[in-house]
Amino acid sequence: MKICRFRHGDSLGIGLIEGDEIWECGIDLERTGVLWYRDEVEMLAPANPSKIVCVGRNYAEHAAELGNEVPSSPLLFLKAPSAVIGDGDTIAIPTQSAHVEHEGELAVIIGHRAKNIDDDEDSLKYVLGFTCLNDVTARDIQRADVQFTRGKSFDTFCPIGPYIETELDVSDLRVTCAVNGEIKQDGRTSQMVFPVEFLVRYISRQMTLMPGDVIATGTPSGVSKLEPGDVCEVSIEGIGTLRNPIGSA
Amino acid sequence: MKICRFRHGDSLGIGLIEGDEIWECGIDLERTGVLWYRDEVEMLAPANPSKIVCVGRNYAEHAAELGNEVPSSPLLFLKAPSAVIGDGDTIAIPTQSAHVEHEGELAVIIGHRAKNIDDDEDSLKYVLGFTCLNDVTARDIQRADVQFTRGKSFDTFCPIGPYIETELDVSDLRVTCAVNGEIKQDGRTSQMVFPVEFLVRYISRQMTLMPGDVIATGTPSGVSKLEPGDVCEVSIEGIGTLRNPIGSA
Repeated sequence: MKICRFRHGDSLGIGLIEGDEIWECGIDLERTGVLWYRDEVEMLAPANPSKIVCVGRNYAEHAAELGNEVPSSPLLFLKAPSAVIGDGDTIAIPTQSAHVEHEGELAVIIGHRAKNIDDDEDSLKYVLGFTCLNDVTARDIQRADVQFTRGKSFDTFCPIGPYIETELDVSDLRVTCAVNGEIKQDGRTSQMVFPVEFLVRYISRQMTLMPGDVIATGTPSGVSKLEPGDVCEVSIEGIGTLRNPIGSA
Repeated sequence: MKICRFRHGDSLGIGLIEGDEIWECGIDLERTGVLWYRDEVEMLAPANPSKIVCVGRNYAEHAAELGNEVPSSPLLFLKAPSAVIGDGDTIAIPTQSAHVEHEGELAVIIGHRAKNIDDDEDSLKYVLGFTCLNDVTARDIQRADVQFTRGKSFDTFCPIGPYIETELDVSDLRVTCAVNGEIKQDGRTSQMVFPVEFLVRYISRQMTLMPGDVIATGTPSGVSKLEPGDVCEVSIEGIGTLRNPIGSA
């Protein structure tokens, strides 16, 4: 299934995408029988998370390009949910930063409340599906603050989308991030230091994961600067492309 | 006004406290006419934030006791909303940490969406009110991770309450934190490096603040270790006391 969130007039909906058709459904993903076409609705970010848990330095080459070691356990930080935008929305460079970079990532969307997942339990059963995420980062502010929060939580700094793909083996997918059509990041999920199954279990032992929560699984090497006028595209094999133009705040 | 959130059976409510009476109200704080008594309902944390923005090292003596300098601008980090508990709920020491500490703080509850508040605008008009917060911290994990997120986001690590006081001048209030009745932290909000009016404006320029969001304004010196069986009480002049027993996860 491909799950989207959309707006039509004043009302928000959840939908299942089939080609150009969007079948409206409830929070239980049961169809209501109402059918929309893509050009009738405004597509939104497919998740509305209570928290966005990010994993730093989860690809060895990216850790090295920023001068860091690979950690011995997942390095966690949070992005503010107010930073979320959808496919097609503009990433706004804030006046506070002179150096904003893209970080294309596979995002895990949680489907069921998960706390202290056991070693012998399949952690993927708590996952609804997967989508693309751009962990946009004001690199200068991140370095100055040491804490990653502010440099990664400006409004528009968390594009997510275009939709959630529920049937996907994410163990070895190509993840790319292109700026103005030129591929800057090009990795595979098999290069993750801590794979998805491990991350979901590990994070569930640090804090309870809620339905709709997002895990950003880290970015491959090749991060580069974004400028107003650029277009940034995160693409993941089997999911699709999250495309966002860059503007000014 | 003193605003609370409560549970009665399966339903959640917002209420205005008058002595032992709780007058149910809507999200607009208009009374519905329904009256409860305190012993009829379960009191909850008075806020249900989309994000908890914390300010590190905002009291000079606390920065010094942990070996840090006072920052030149507010040091921001986020706690996970899944960590929120209410007055009377148990703080659970996780198995991962051998050293969990209390940090009593004044919490600001946002009333209206706030983005890029102007210099000449009163930032307090975006504030609904104030309450007590305990920024419980696994100090060993905080130091090991460098990023504050994990050590401060375990479930139950964010007691908030007992209720939101809307009429209060917070420029010079006593803030204490006691363990088993012995006062460990004893400061005044006038000692903040960055006062509340400044923090609300500053944070609104880094990320949009939403109604219900919480700003934890930093902790005075005197943090100390919590053990199962202890009782921790954060008290703020003009608000009241947030009391939580300590247990094990």
